[in-house]
Amino acid sequence: MRIALCQLDFTVGDISGNVRKVLDAMAKCRDYGAEIFIFPELALSGYPPEDLLFKKDFIRDVKMGLEKIAGEVREELLIIGFPEQSGDDLYNSAAILNNGRIAGTYKKACLPNYGVFDEKRYFTPGSDLVLLDCNGLRIGVNICEDIWVSPGVTEQLSACGADLIVNISASPYHRGKIRERIDMLSERAVSNRTTICYLNTVGGQDELVFDGGSAVLNDRGELILRMPQFEECIACFDFVPRTVDSSLINKSRVDQLNAGVIKVDIKQRGNKEKILNSMCPDLGEEEEVFSALKTGLRDYVYKNGFRKVVVGVSGGIDSALTVAIAAEALGKENVVGATMPSRYTSDESKEMSKRLFDNLGIEHIDIPIDDIFQAYLKSLERDFAQLPADITEENIQARIRGNILMAFSNKFGYLVLNTGNKSEVSMGYCTLYGDMAGGFAVLKDVLKTWVYKLANYCNKRSGFEAIPSGIILREPTAELRLNQKDSDTIPPYRILDPILDAYIEDELDVNSIRALGFDRNLVKSIIKKVDRNEYKRRQAPPGIKITVKAFGRDRRFPITNKYSN
Amino acid sequence: MRIALCQLDFTVGDISGNVRKVLDAMAKCRDYGAEIFIFPELALSGYPPEDLLFKKDFIRDVKMGLEKIAGEVREELLIIGFPEQSGDDLYNSAAILNNGRIAGTYKKACLPNYGVFDEKRYFTPGSDLVLLDCNGLRIGVNICEDIWVSPGVTEQLSACGADLIVNISASPYHRGKIRERIDMLSERAVSNRTTICYLNTVGGQDELVFDGGSAVLNDRGELILRMPQFEECIACFDFVPRTVDSSLINKSRVDQLNAGVIKVDIKQRGNKEKILNSMCPDLGEEEEVFSALKTGLRDYVYKNGFRKVVVGVSGGIDSALTVAIAAEALGKENVVGATMPSRYTSDESKEMSKRLFDNLGIEHIDIPIDDIFQAYLKSLERDFAQLPADITEENIQARIRGNILMAFSNKFGYLVLNTGNKSEVSMGYCTLYGDMAGGFAVLKDVLKTWVYKLANYCNKRSGFEAIPSGIILREPTAELRLNQKDSDTIPPYRILDPILDAYIEDELDVNSIRALGFDRNLVKSIIKKVDRNEYKRRQAPPGIKITVKAFGRDRRFPITNKYSN
Repeated sequence: MRIALCQLDFTVGDISGNVRKVLDAMAKCRDYGAEIFIFPELALSGYPPEDLLFKKDFIRDVKMGLEKIAGEVREELLIIGFPEQSGDDLYNSAAILNNGRIAGTYKKACLPNYGVFDEKRYFTPGSDLVLLDCNGLRIGVNICEDIWVSPGVTEQLSACGADLIVNISASPYHRGKIRERIDMLSERAVSNRTTICYLNTVGGQDELVFDGGSAVLNDRGELILRMPQFEECIACFDFVPRTVDSSLINKSRVDQLNAGVIKVDIKQRGNKEKILNSMCPDLGEEEEVFSALKTGLRDYVYKNGFRKVVVGVSGGIDSALTVAIAAEALGKENVVGATMPSRYTSDESKEMSKRLFDNLGIEHIDIPIDDIFQAYLKSLERDFAQLPADITEENIQARIRGNILMAFSNKFGYLVLNTGNKSEVSMGYCTLYGDMAGGFAVLKDVLKTWVYKLANYCNKRSGFEAIPSGIILREPTAELRLNQKDSDTIPPYRILDPILDAYIEDELDVNSIRALGFDRNLVKSIIKKVDRNEYKRRQAPPGIKITVKAFGRDRRFPITNKYSN
Repeated sequence: MRIALCQLDFTVGDISGNVRKVLDAMAKCRDYGAEIFIFPELALSGYPPEDLLFKKDFIRDVKMGLEKIAGEVREELLIIGFPEQSGDDLYNSAAILNNGRIAGTYKKACLPNYGVFDEKRYFTPGSDLVLLDCNGLRIGVNICEDIWVSPGVTEQLSACGADLIVNISASPYHRGKIRERIDMLSERAVSNRTTICYLNTVGGQDELVFDGGSAVLNDRGELILRMPQFEECIACFDFVPRTVDSSLINKSRVDQLNAGVIKVDIKQRGNKEKILNSMCPDLGEEEEVFSALKTGLRDYVYKNGFRKVVVGVSGGIDSALTVAIAAEALGKENVVGATMPSRYTSDESKEMSKRLFDNLGIEHIDIPIDDIFQAYLKSLERDFAQLPADITEENIQARIRGNILMAFSNKFGYLVLNTGNKSEVSMGYCTLYGDMAGGFAVLKDVLKTWVYKLANYCNKRSGFEAIPSGIILREPTAELRLNQKDSDTIPPYRILDPILDAYIEDELDVNSIRALGFDRNLVKSIIKKVDRNEYKRRQAPPGIKITVKAFGRDRRFPITNKYSN
């Protein structure tokens, strides 16, 4: 039996587009000689549909889309995820389509409600197992979280006699997660002595990126198929079970575990050509993160109807990396770099920006801000009269730049990309409505030390100095006052970043972080800054999650909060 | 037995402050001759503590705070909510304190995970009932959602023999919710033939306001105590049960339902004076909403360490109402009004602003923006050369005002109040980083038609024209271009608002809204605008929830979303 895994990029809310994508993929699957076609979790609605799920007409339209697909299914099996209304309850379900009809559904049992997930807000957990009997081949179906929870649905399906487990997922990316997934799947395959076919969705949706990386593991836990990360792909494998025999279904277990057995009629397609087994290698750590950022940016831009982006370029590394990623994701002709020099902008910065534009070959606009800045100072002169210059004057400049970038957005329809990194955003070392302005924040979840890694990777990858080495080597500065350096205000990044990592991603407390070798008072002051700047982040643009814990849905902190360690 | 209900305003994260507040209240309760003291749900941590609950040291510090209070409890009973770590699980618990120790805890069984609530993200549901035997008085304890779900914990406690149900809550306000609550409590009291003592918390926390309005209902469902809304208050009632007899505890039900019976030793305080039974009347609809906004604003300002606020005043009704509410909440000496006229600002607007400042007696600054605007236009001249003026130039002006307000915030430590109403925010009729700038958005959940109601109420309440009638009567305009009117861009508010209400609060679909008597295409275009502007709202400041469904945690919509009805 040939099984096709359709690792595709579906769009939230685009039901007719998603249906069309499924129908196109079905035609390809047939060309490949497959009899079983598998699509990801909630493919028809896109994932995560969030409160769209409360719209009755949305649920109804999804159902109509599903029925349209079912009508096109012949003597073959198609499994696809969709939100299923049943009575008063909504389920995260897998539809089993066969022979022109919906033969049944499996309702997800384990609903994640942690991290970025809110599935208990929407769905009722299912309670019944579903086992498919496809000409004697016994397939157990489950959905995403179901296979992570052990013992659970997978073990029960195996006990019922399943010799193949199909898991459809929408599993968001974070750095290194693919290793966790493969290890977990291998463990499940071995301990249940079954083949596991794991299909993940791919593509970006707001703050999330789904990395695909779908895989098939045999009953010894060995990878026999591994699909690429961050790319759409349809791949097939030929499943040759040890036995093809409906009578191996364990009837007493089926009754005991309240499982439904669905008979599926499949007409085998003969005369198959041998197919190339896809076996993609591991991506390097930097390549993986770079690809995640590229995918997340590209999908945010295109799915929201934009073509071109504009980026404020300072001559520093954050904006340089943002521009480089944008040029790769959207094409260099769709990226506009804007320099907005002030009296504090050094010649070095100007030179670095110029080199960056030359190296990448992107369009460049230049709007000096000093006249505007002077106009503000003059207007505020009377009210600010006796007071020394402070952060106020710095922020005014940052906000002038925000205003200019937004003017280009309004006038030409560009999306403004924000260039702030996670280290800054954590510490509030950034200006609301100033450098925090923008529709999308590419580096929001990338710590500064990782910005350097990615810049170096970017140059290695392109085979030339896409990002001028001068930008990588110079000391970080906001240039909002004379001779300003980041290190005047925040600790050096090589010390700051591991502390942020420990506090935010690993959720360690002061004592545990101190035990890693950091000064207690420094740790406390950093934690305090992170917590106190929640109000800024609440108004930050969305950005791409690449770590275990990103700011946004992942980390829900009160603004009003008097706790301090 | 005299029971004291401590309807107090606790602060999220302020464990030592919350402990102090409890100890102070205990002393008052004793003065009133009470033997039983009741505090709200999660009082020690504040509600909702959100991801603070993932901090191990926070949970540990709360426990230490609880033990400190327990040490002060004599032969009396104190019930208070706190997050309880037990093994690997965290519970939303009520501590039963008696005689210097923690006599036991009740773990909340029903965890809300809808609307603004995420309790399943944090807590494990409890499974055991708790019945207190206080010298023969049988008290059943439950927490917030537990009493809303019926049949449920309340019925089970009643079956075990409880003659008094104590429910501790943190129930967020929306318009008219108090009526729903009282009706529900009355129904529970009658159907279980028990007295119900319902204690709600009070005060603002980020986007939520808790309205208090605690109440006691006798076993005929009649209100015998009703506490004020939006005010801290300690009130007592004397509970005289039909029988005081431990043997009335239904042992077989207790065993069957897995209930724990906790013996509590209480020394009755003799010689009691008669207490005045608090029986607050219903607030009028406008007064209730006005009080909610006042409380939400006041607590956000003070709990975040601000004293003074600055508001951009246009001469229109939204900013006038915002200033009036702020003056009531913080005192007129703590409100600064800023006019920032442009070439498009009419004499009428200038005159209206002046009258508003005079009438309210608040400080006033005036920063004309035209010179700054000219500086922008000049700087952008080359790049925008051939193109006609459009929304770009309008937004530049709005963003200049945002920048100026933030400069006053930075220079003088004022909090900037945003003045946008829910009708605008729904339709995206507002400028990101412009009029959307600000730390807190007082009217974010107030539809424009309600803005008018509140302005009129405000004048009625103060007994004079606090908000000049000219402001109330004039046609709404953004004054960002010549002769601009709101009605050029969005439908009249008397038509728009009921459609927004139907779509957002009642979650109706196009056909159901059309059935209310509106044009189908108009309804579709409004829904589309609401959905498409999610990206703006994602960067909006927090504001006070006063309706069933506010923007924010309450309504989680994808930005990237191709669904259209």
